[in-house]
This record gives sequence, C-alpha cells and structure tokens, in this order.
Amino acid sequence: MAVYTDVSDKALEQFLQLYNVGQLLWCKGIAEGVENSNYIMATDKGQFILTLYEARVNEDDLPFFLGLMNHLAKNDLATARPIEQNDGKLYSTLCGKPAALIEFLDGVALKTPNNQNLFQLGVATANFHKKAETFNIKRPNGLGLADWQPLFEKCGNDINIIAPNIKGGLHNFLSNELQFLQENWPSNLPTGVIHADLFPDNVFFMHGELSGIIDFYFACNEIYAYELAIIINAWCFEKNGELNSTKVRAFFRGYQSARQLEAAELDAMVILCRASAMRFLLTRLYDWINVPENALVIPKKPDEYIRNLQFHQKIDNYKQYGIE
Amino acid sequence: MAVYTDVSDKALEQFLQLYNVGQLLWCKGIAEGVENSNYIMATDKGQFILTLYEARVNEDDLPFFLGLMNHLAKNDLATARPIEQNDGKLYSTLCGKPAALIEFLDGVALKTPNNQNLFQLGVATANFHKKAETFNIKRPNGLGLADWQPLFEKCGNDINIIAPNIKGGLHNFLSNELQFLQENWPSNLPTGVIHADLFPDNVFFMHGELSGIIDFYFACNEIYAYELAIIINAWCFEKNGELNSTKVRAFFRGYQSARQLEAAELDAMVILCRASAMRFLLTRLYDWINVPENALVIPKKPDEYIRNLQFHQKIDNYKQYGIE
Repeated sequence: MAVYTDVSDKALEQFLQLYNVGQLLWCKGIAEGVENSNYIMATDKGQFILTLYEARVNEDDLPFFLGLMNHLAKNDLATARPIEQNDGKLYSTLCGKPAALIEFLDGVALKTPNNQNLFQLGVATANFHKKAETFNIKRPNGLGLADWQPLFEKCGNDINIIAPNIKGGLHNFLSNELQFLQENWPSNLPTGVIHADLFPDNVFFMHGELSGIIDFYFACNEIYAYELAIIINAWCFEKNGELNSTKVRAFFRGYQSARQLEAAELDAMVILCRASAMRFLLTRLYDWINVPENALVIPKKPDEYIRNLQFHQKIDNYKQYGIE
Repeated sequence: MAVYTDVSDKALEQFLQLYNVGQLLWCKGIAEGVENSNYIMATDKGQFILTLYEARVNEDDLPFFLGLMNHLAKNDLATARPIEQNDGKLYSTLCGKPAALIEFLDGVALKTPNNQNLFQLGVATANFHKKAETFNIKRPNGLGLADWQPLFEKCGNDINIIAPNIKGGLHNFLSNELQFLQENWPSNLPTGVIHADLFPDNVFFMHGELSGIIDFYFACNEIYAYELAIIINAWCFEKNGELNSTKVRAFFRGYQSARQLEAAELDAMVILCRASAMRFLLTRLYDWINVPENALVIPKKPDEYIRNLQFHQKIDNYKQYGIE
C-alpha cells in the first residue's frame, strides 16, 4: 500500500488536458499497489485510476505493461484498460514521473475467496495466457531463476535471526534450496506472457463473478505453469499453513477448461511451487531488511513463504496438491 | 494519511445491511484523515465514505460529531452528511470499531487556493458558525488552552534539539509563550461550535466553488474568532514563511459578509493567532516525538508552526495582518 507522490490540483488538471476525459471532479490517493502511487479520480465523463510510476518500475517497461493491458482489454479479458491520450500515447509525465490513466474497474478483492472464485480465476488465467499469445512485445522476467541468487546475496549473511526456528539457519536453508532449483529447473515447458503477480489483491470480483485483473507491473515472458504455481502459493493455503486442495482442484479445473495443461507442465508443478515460494520469500526478505525510508509501505514478513516452501519440499508428486 | 483497519469484504457486506444503500460495487482505502481509517466505496445507489473511528476518537463524542454534520447538512451547509441506518442510528460497529457511512462529496482539496477561494472559505466558515447555533449538543475543546501545558510537559525536556536555531531553546520558548497565553487569554468573546481543523485538506472546491467541508472530528464549543486564527495560520502563509495579507483580507471579507465580527474579536486576533499556532505546534511536536508504531502516518514536523508563532509574536495589532 502506498501513496508516494503528492499530486497538486494544478498539475493534475494540466495532465488531464492531454486526454479527452472531461473536467476533474475529485481525486483521492488510494492505499493500493506497492510499486506505484495510485489515485482514484472522477471527471464528468467517468472514473479512472491514475497511476504514477515510482522508482521501482522501469519506464522502458511501460510500453510492454500498458500495451499488454490494452491488448488484453481489447481482446475482452476483464482487465483495466489504459486510456489513450489525444495523441494516442498511453502515458506521459506528471510531477516528474511517468503516469497513466487507467479505466476504473468495479469489484472488490476478496479476503476469503471460495472454490467458485478459484474456478473463475483459473478460467481467467488461462484466457490471459491464450489472449496474450498475439501480443508482440516481449519482456524477460526480472525476478526469475537467474535473479534469485544475487537477490539472496544482497540480503546479507545475518538473516538467520529472521526465522530462528529453521534447523541449520535460514541462510543455509535458502542457499541449499537455490542450488536445488538451479540443478532441477525444468526445461522445454510452454512459455508466454504471464501476469506473475496474480495475488488476491489484484483480482476483483463482483456479484460472485470475476470482474477484473489489475496491477500488470510484474508481467513478463515466463513458463505458463509458473503462474499456476504462484497462484497455489497465493490463494490455496489456509491461514494456519495447511493447503486447501479443494481450492487447488477448483483452480486447475477452471484453467484446464480453457487451456489444457501438458503432462510435463503438471510434472513440473512441485518444483515450480518451490520456485515461486522462493521468489516471493526473497523479495519479502529483502524488503523486510530494507524498509524504504518515508514509505507508507508496511513490508510483509517472509514467514508465510518460508512455511510454504517447507511444505512444497515434502511433496513429491503434483497429485498431492489435489490436482487431477 | 492513514488506513489503519483492514476491512474484509464479508464484514463490510454485513455492515451495509444496516443501511438502505444497495449492493456493494467496490471499496478502496484512501490516504485521507489522520485520526481514522477512511474508505471510498460505491454501491448501485451511490458513492460513500466509510469511516472507522480509531483509538484517538472517543466514541462518546460521535453523537456530537455526526449529529453536527447531520445538522449542518440539513441546514444546507456544504458538508458531508452521515447516512442514517435503517433504525435511524448514525453509526455502529465494524471490525470492532465504531464506523459510519458518510455522503461522498465531489471536489478537490486545493494545494494553492486563490483569493476567491479564501473569500468563499470565509463565507462558509461564518455560515458554519451561524448554522451550528441551533445544534443542541455541546463538546468542550479537548485541545484548548487548559490542555496545552500538560501536552507540552508530555513532550519532555529534551526537545531543544528539534529546533536548534531558537535562542534559549525550544523548551524555554514554549514555556514562556504558554505563560503569556495563560496570562493574556481574552475573555467575553462570542463562542459557539467551531470546526477547529479547517485546514486546506478539509475543504473541497469544484469548478471554482467551495463544494464541501469534511473531517469534523475536532469540532467543539470554542471562541469563534479562534477558528479564524486557525485559518490565518493554515491558509495564509506562503511556503517561505511570509504572510499573504491579501488572502487574510479576502477571508475576512468573506466571513464578515455573513457574520459581522465584534471589535473585541478583532482585537483578540493576534493572541488567538499565537494560541492556534501553539495548539498545532504542540500536537505536531508530540506526534513527531511519538510516531505511532505500524502507522501509515507521516508526522508533520512542528517547524512551520514555530515559524508562524514567531511571526505572530512580532505583531501588535490585527490590522498588520491585512484585516480591514
């Protein structure tokens, strides 16, 4: 949650003149999105999300992110569409930062999604993967396998204290796991554009239906099945650390109703679950150690992902997740 | 800026059943209001502000605050009206905290209000004072003259370091000023309900007109002219610390177009400016020393109010502010 940049009324009105969106009625900073400053605003023509891209988003990636959102929205996926400026551009500068105006999506992020929501999420994820096939910009994963070892090293050697209950220490635990992932990384799996951050915060539901996917700022070209592994970690564990295999099953049923998984993708699910647990564990660990000064962000402790990773280490077949 | 309480979709939907406001479409935490958690939300019947009252607001004061908002809105002041529940109540409990649903007001808080805005603010402030005369609940000022000495003492003796440029030290400076205020406090001035926190953040404008006043959670019975002194401090100083007397004049013209000030009120303006500078100086000082843990609040340094106080100490007649 973050509002980093304070936008003045004057600067905003000037910015809005680049668009054909009418006259400003109000604008309020919202506590949404960790990487950017987000505002909800209304004009006499409608409501919008105004996003200012802060330091952690590379401006060079914006044509990919905003182009992808545009591509998916035009292909009828329930996603937030960037509004085109009068000159056709999808972003320009506000308060010295790249900024875009995004269509406002109704719906609420669910704290306790049910099995039907998981099925709907599965369908939407598969449709995302399929509809993005015709999107013609590529972006490598900036937080993929090759990036974890350097990120781990940036966390330093004094991390054992963060998880004192791990036998042999957290540093050793992560070091061994990183080696395992390097040595056992699956090859030849289908790849394409994935969202790469499909957490419950980023999926809206309304009247029992999935109404929108937001926050495309980790999207990249990656193994499709890796997205599914992220979702198992982010949506299918109970608060007490137990896996809810009914949710896993519902999600996979939804996904496979729109895109059939190959046997190799299913076989790789366990290592990809370990891998995606590692990815979020490492960024949370890093953020926990390096709380940005004057940020409104409350970093999340890495504990949940340490626990998930330990869970996956004991799984030796994808069927144990409840996948059919 | 603060969102303290995380409201689940389930809890919110249950809460909304107490009202006749239709079905929830979306709800987003906004970075507004220091004392409370605020959300903007929409149903199929309209948009609302949802406020959860955190520890710093005393639940016993809610009938005063919400009753006042209701009273003023019914008397056509541009203020946010609390929505009545089906049983007529103006608040109940959400996530274990008192919570109210408030009418949504269009408009933006101005970073650089102009003279016309100050005139409009003057008119609205006078109308606030006059329309609140018929409101029949009373609330003493919880941050009035009698409260400053104890608040000052709670800040401790090691405060000089916060303003190293003050000759004789900040502690001595404040101690002397508190004594001066005690000894010279004006008596027999007209009193009534004031907003007591009419900062630019709390006043919305739209299409060049004042569209709404929000955040009534410091409102109390107090000297009317004290409100005007707060506004001089909050609206009429330039960033470089200079007083903009044109703004002061525009504000007072607006105020006096709706409520004529007595000579005694004008004569008391200098000491009330010193007093209101002291009040915000002390709370900012206290908050600066005691940043609440896990808060999303960025405390404001007291510097601006130290500077204002020093400015007022050199004034000996209200006409020097530009007041006619």
